[in-house]
Amino acid sequence: MRDGEWRVFGERSVYDSRWMTVNLVDVHEPGVGRYEHHALRLRPVSVIALVKDEHVLLAWRHRFIPDVWAWELPGGIIDDGETPHQAAAREAEEETGWRPETVEHLITFEPMAGSAVTPHHVFIGRNPTQVSEANMAECVKAEWVPFAAIPQLLSDGQVSDSTAIIGLQQILLMHRA
Amino acid sequence: MRDGEWRVFGERSVYDSRWMTVNLVDVHEPGVGRYEHHALRLRPVSVIALVKDEHVLLAWRHRFIPDVWAWELPGGIIDDGETPHQAAAREAEEETGWRPETVEHLITFEPMAGSAVTPHHVFIGRNPTQVSEANMAECVKAEWVPFAAIPQLLSDGQVSDSTAIIGLQQILLMHRA
Repeated sequence: MRDGEWRVFGERSVYDSRWMTVNLVDVHEPGVGRYEHHALRLRPVSVIALVKDEHVLLAWRHRFIPDVWAWELPGGIIDDGETPHQAAAREAEEETGWRPETVEHLITFEPMAGSAVTPHHVFIGRNPTQVSEANMAECVKAEWVPFAAIPQLLSDGQVSDSTAIIGLQQILLMHRA
Repeated sequence: MRDGEWRVFGERSVYDSRWMTVNLVDVHEPGVGRYEHHALRLRPVSVIALVKDEHVLLAWRHRFIPDVWAWELPGGIIDDGETPHQAAAREAEEETGWRPETVEHLITFEPMAGSAVTPHHVFIGRNPTQVSEANMAECVKAEWVPFAAIPQLLSDGQVSDSTAIIGLQQILLMHRA
């Protein structure tokens, strides 16, 4: 065991469902001691930034738990048997009606590494073509937003979810590189 | 009620603790229908990017739930009665021994807007001076990492948590602007 590694002695379930589980883990924290720590497990997620002519397709939607309206990237929970890449391509088409020519992995992260495991994968889809109408059930409007407008959206708090912020920041960094 | 807004009819607790609560919310999702949706509530978090001469102070630490080792920004849960800004300044000094001259808000986000409310605040601390030894309990090593090395850390998967990725990407964007 490396110095600084947390040591797990056991784990018990306090809540279990198809969508999330909550466990209490009997753990030793280096320099602190042994206690029970919460551990959430949620399903993995893929999102995709569809880009075309220095614009990105964003959806304006309501998140009822924090009760915020914000711009987000299309995406959602990865289905059983599906790869993160397949989920990103499927969600793009289902939610927006646009099919990208290529789907490329940008980054994978943990939203809350200290309390949960739920890998979130961010993809970029280039040269999309419209193959159907958008499914507007999941958002109020979808818009092609110019890259140049993204910094203002970020500083105004018009983007709130980690997936959208990370995806948009990464697009700007690639664009400015 | 605006088109696209989710409508909440009620909520019941399925798990409750000081650190997190899990509720089931009786909600109507536009275009889908009415069902029970999980809603997590966790405590708010502040992190801080200490910067000096185009370097940022990163901590290499273990997150036992996803079982990853990665570079992170100093930070943690906001104490009762503390502002996000105060928490960022406190965590910087407690964890790293460095006291920034100024502490400035960069961005606030929700790690998982679709399933949780837990505001995460990212700050930047400029011109830090060392006032004590680092508290190494929470990390194995702390290093001043040059801005130029950040893109490689991100693409290598050596940064995993949303707070660190968002903070580091924002620093790069400000630096390149």
